Amino acid sequence: MIRTSKHLKKVSQYQPPSRKRSRKVKLDLNENMLGCSPKVLDALKNIDWENISCYPEYDLLIEKTAAHYHVKPEQILFTNGGDDAIRCAIDTYIMESDRVLLPVPTFSMFEIQLKIRGARIRYLPYQPDFSFPFDTYHRSLCKGITMGIIVNPGSPTGKSIKQDQLLSIVEKANTHNIVILLDETYHHFSGKTNMELIKSYSNLIIMQTFSKAFGLAGMRLGFIASQEQNILQMQKVNLPYTVNSLAVIAGLAAIEDYDHINKVISQVNNEREFLYRELTKLGLRPHMTETNFILVDCGNYCNDIFQQLAERGILVRNISSNLRMEHILRISIGTRKEHEILIAALKEIIPSLK
Amino acid sequence: MIRTSKHLKKVSQYQPPSRKRSRKVKLDLNENMLGCSPKVLDALKNIDWENISCYPEYDLLIEKTAAHYHVKPEQILFTNGGDDAIRCAIDTYIMESDRVLLPVPTFSMFEIQLKIRGARIRYLPYQPDFSFPFDTYHRSLCKGITMGIIVNPGSPTGKSIKQDQLLSIVEKANTHNIVILLDETYHHFSGKTNMELIKSYSNLIIMQTFSKAFGLAGMRLGFIASQEQNILQMQKVNLPYTVNSLAVIAGLAAIEDYDHINKVISQVNNEREFLYRELTKLGLRPHMTETNFILVDCGNYCNDIFQQLAERGILVRNISSNLRMEHILRISIGTRKEHEILIAALKEIIPSLK
Repeated sequence: MIRTSKHLKKVSQYQPPSRKRSRKVKLDLNENMLGCSPKVLDALKNIDWENISCYPEYDLLIEKTAAHYHVKPEQILFTNGGDDAIRCAIDTYIMESDRVLLPVPTFSMFEIQLKIRGARIRYLPYQPDFSFPFDTYHRSLCKGITMGIIVNPGSPTGKSIKQDQLLSIVEKANTHNIVILLDETYHHFSGKTNMELIKSYSNLIIMQTFSKAFGLAGMRLGFIASQEQNILQMQKVNLPYTVNSLAVIAGLAAIEDYDHINKVISQVNNEREFLYRELTKLGLRPHMTETNFILVDCGNYCNDIFQQLAERGILVRNISSNLRMEHILRISIGTRKEHEILIAALKEIIPSLK
Repeated sequence: MIRTSKHLKKVSQYQPPSRKRSRKVKLDLNENMLGCSPKVLDALKNIDWENISCYPEYDLLIEKTAAHYHVKPEQILFTNGGDDAIRCAIDTYIMESDRVLLPVPTFSMFEIQLKIRGARIRYLPYQPDFSFPFDTYHRSLCKGITMGIIVNPGSPTGKSIKQDQLLSIVEKANTHNIVILLDETYHHFSGKTNMELIKSYSNLIIMQTFSKAFGLAGMRLGFIASQEQNILQMQKVNLPYTVNSLAVIAGLAAIEDYDHINKVISQVNNEREFLYRELTKLGLRPHMTETNFILVDCGNYCNDIFQQLAERGILVRNISSNLRMEHILRISIGTRKEHEILIAALKEIIPSLK
């Protein structure tokens, strides 16, 4: 047996929660089930062999993205999806034994990447009502901490941190040279990005993705925004041709069709309301979020409901083993049709369990 | 200024050697200028929004690739191009201060990834005739070495290591628990893969790419082959959705059209001969290779020729600052038309320099 990096002993493989998802009702991965802009598919109709056979170039995508968010192209670094943005930031700034603040529960990729680098993670539990643990987080920002992670809105907690609290954290972290890694994966649904803060704070690294509101999860397109000297450092651990040429074409078409994004956001908001009402009527306890998923407390029947939905080809995410998430299923916001299938199934399943 | 990982101080960003390559004669990046299989473009005509908006799945591509190379699916790990395969293997097995054997000159990504991890690199120069430094490499395989890298055929040296030498290295390394990372990026052109050796040697990690003979450089599709217990470890540092959905479709179509690969290989062989003859006629000293590029000793005019070709929109690679590569330009094998443009330009440039 060949010796691996010692930190890998504590790391487990990320297992995609479900596979062979084709032809199922996919309410498990917070994808955009309304689909990408039709202009993305149009743009991809015009590809030729050079798009396939030549190495990708994405200066134009960087320029357009920077312009869209009112930052400089030198402040943007594209990555192979949001996962790779997390990897790049952590690999650039975290060394063995560095201490990192991580509010939990959260997206598992943070813990995986931190463990790969041998970081010491200080887990800060969200409040019982899923709100951000501001007091403990703010108090923990002191000498000896290298990085603090904030996912905003939270995942799977679904709520935003208050803006004055976020500012107070970034400000205090800055005085201690602590990097704040701010994950804005779901920001379109909460309606608020903090991209403008990178102008003022050299310790702020923001990551975003084209996988959610833009509907490009299959394209693997994410990016980091930060001050130029930080981007130059992260470029060292970012692979030079990390984004696929067709992802570049898709990204360009997506970012130019903001009408589609607005439509997606409004439809997600409506459908989340619909699901909230229907789940309540069924006697379940949904939690409203500012994202494209909803949380549902299913009580003691949580695992049974999850299982029986899966048997019917309806995929949701069972997050009940997470801290604070006892009895909770996470359901992505899909189309009205998908929600009607889900509700109809629950109407059959729930009475059979009692 | 935020502190980065200390190893990054010694790492420079990989700068793509040329940009804005569209509409130029691209003989600089060893792409397949004959293009991918037409079946790849056909397959990509049938995509729908789910390919774009849902997270990728690539079990089928793993199965087909494993079957093609007569290994098990559990012995294959797909990566975001060959660069990412290098990153995964090095990140899994290399810790700070580990000693690694690296024959030079070689593809720069090895040195970048090794430096990121803080490895101590033992550089082993290729022979003056560009043949593999077998004696020093074999002698260096001893306690205290963690990994040895072999690029076969070499890049940019262009020659294969003798098969009995390779076996002798893998065998000796195995007795010392030294990982051999074998890069077979150009193996289609030399006609020899060592994939079957992973069955016998638990210390062997082979990496391949779809960027060269398959002509999918824009798709970012590479893979690692090794014994199952090694793949499980490398999976920890490999991102779960590292390959783009359209790359999966392209890869499936490419690997099923082996006739196209055979056509590419035969055309590359013919065109390399053509270029060799024509460059010789011009008074330059080409070096034959077993890859899809050729090396040309341009003497003292090397930089001038490189520059004047670039001014004419003809991109080749100036590798003359590399060890053993003084005065040498690397020219990718392209189409006959591209070669005629190149030769015509050289016929104008060379007399003007004397």
